[in-house]
Amino acid sequence: MLICHTINEIKSFTRQAASQGKTIGFVPTMGYFHAGHLALMSEAKKTCSVVVSSIFVNPVQFGPQEDFTCYPRDIDRDKRLAVEVGVDAIFIPSVEEMYPPRFSTFVETKKITDCLCGKSRPGHFQGVTTVVTKLFNIIQPDIAFFGQKDFQQAATIRRMAEDLNLKVKIVLVPTVRDKDGLALSSRNIYLEGAQRQAALSIPKSLALAAQAVENGERDPIKVKMAVCNMLAAEPLVEIDYIEIYSLPHLEEISLLQGEVLLAIAAKVGKTRLIDNLVLKIPDNWPIIPNKR
Amino acid sequence: MLICHTINEIKSFTRQAASQGKTIGFVPTMGYFHAGHLALMSEAKKTCSVVVSSIFVNPVQFGPQEDFTCYPRDIDRDKRLAVEVGVDAIFIPSVEEMYPPRFSTFVETKKITDCLCGKSRPGHFQGVTTVVTKLFNIIQPDIAFFGQKDFQQAATIRRMAEDLNLKVKIVLVPTVRDKDGLALSSRNIYLEGAQRQAALSIPKSLALAAQAVENGERDPIKVKMAVCNMLAAEPLVEIDYIEIYSLPHLEEISLLQGEVLLAIAAKVGKTRLIDNLVLKIPDNWPIIPNKR
Repeated sequence: MLICHTINEIKSFTRQAASQGKTIGFVPTMGYFHAGHLALMSEAKKTCSVVVSSIFVNPVQFGPQEDFTCYPRDIDRDKRLAVEVGVDAIFIPSVEEMYPPRFSTFVETKKITDCLCGKSRPGHFQGVTTVVTKLFNIIQPDIAFFGQKDFQQAATIRRMAEDLNLKVKIVLVPTVRDKDGLALSSRNIYLEGAQRQAALSIPKSLALAAQAVENGERDPIKVKMAVCNMLAAEPLVEIDYIEIYSLPHLEEISLLQGEVLLAIAAKVGKTRLIDNLVLKIPDNWPIIPNKR
Repeated sequence: MLICHTINEIKSFTRQAASQGKTIGFVPTMGYFHAGHLALMSEAKKTCSVVVSSIFVNPVQFGPQEDFTCYPRDIDRDKRLAVEVGVDAIFIPSVEEMYPPRFSTFVETKKITDCLCGKSRPGHFQGVTTVVTKLFNIIQPDIAFFGQKDFQQAATIRRMAEDLNLKVKIVLVPTVRDKDGLALSSRNIYLEGAQRQAALSIPKSLALAAQAVENGERDPIKVKMAVCNMLAAEPLVEIDYIEIYSLPHLEEISLLQGEVLLAIAAKVGKTRLIDNLVLKIPDNWPIIPNKR
């Protein structure tokens, strides 16, 4: 596996691959790999002839009160894991390599970032779209792979790529969960004993919502209330948001129909966790009551 | 000359040219060609094997009080002129082709756009960098050509291309002037008789400034005052700004040294005109007086 620290190194690798007609799959990450990252790389390996990943804890997407400095890092372990899933090259730039002194250009996707994490973390998605635009221009991938756990991130990047006429196709890979149901996240290592147990209320409440919808509930407010009640019963969990939006554009709805996203963000101790579920609502509404 | 109205058409032309190893020169314009535009195309023709131009009056770079709707257009004449200078393909998209309904991504280059036209026309450069990023991604040029008259535009696009890791090289082509010295601009057709005469005070004041510097003046305030006095003597001219900044980063200076930009914006009637001069200051300061 090729390890590149400079833009020129990774560019010359990807340009050569492209000139040989190879399709390039790309998995941008902030490192500290878990099975979720590895699932993205494995998916890339299945569909592309060359797989490139990047590890870059992007300062621009962290708010001033957020965990940039203490975000977990273990580059050596990441390299070993990437080799195991067959990654061909990994790009690990320094902050200076990505943001040289006079850097001053930002990419912002509006509307779709007005809700959910975009609302809770001002500036976060501008940091994401900026760094991902740069990475896409450097790597020039045919397909880029993103995890469903960060659903709004993937939807935003898809919107951005379309708006800016980038050639890359964005593929969403299902969330990987631990045995107990918690969505994998590099931030899960912050969770201590009881917190971990409390955090399980997040996937449990998603399952509860799915069950309610399966039982015929079509009122998004009632579904959100059911989730809210379950999370609120857990004293260590502090709810940030519980929202339901239409797909693919994340727009507000007053009735559950078609495909919708149920998304949760909550703090457990100091750790901010997110999770979501895509619900496919069967087309069985309105139910016309039988006349007696 | 190939005429393309859709992104897919022009993309397939440029991708094929690139796959044949041809270098692509690109001249983005808002149309209504004058000799300044044609100079950009001729320059592209000299250095690139394929020359692509675009005509797109970009609504996003016009302010609400500006002249988007009445901006001069003459596509048929533009096509004839482009053929004459050897343009190979011209891209003339509709507004809907460039900005489909859910479009919501913007590219913004800060700092370098804080002064000059960026200060006078809020949002203007965000419109420029957004559309140019899109055009660069569509065309994928090796070199793009911009006129020196819009110096801040070229400097901003150069910064943007570097920041976003675009492969394109930005080339600046000297301002083309009419016989009377007025910098060519599509907006010059707005000028009526006496206004045109009044507008000549702009290039004349630039020449005056150049003379002052040649005579040893090194105080930017004094140079700006000389320009200001000449323009203020012309009742039809309303000064927007007279500024001197260091090159290439457009930073404030208190002493004329190295390369500097003297830039003017002024309204003549309702017509906003800009012009500028790059001054190369001889390295002869401080002058140590002879002791007697």
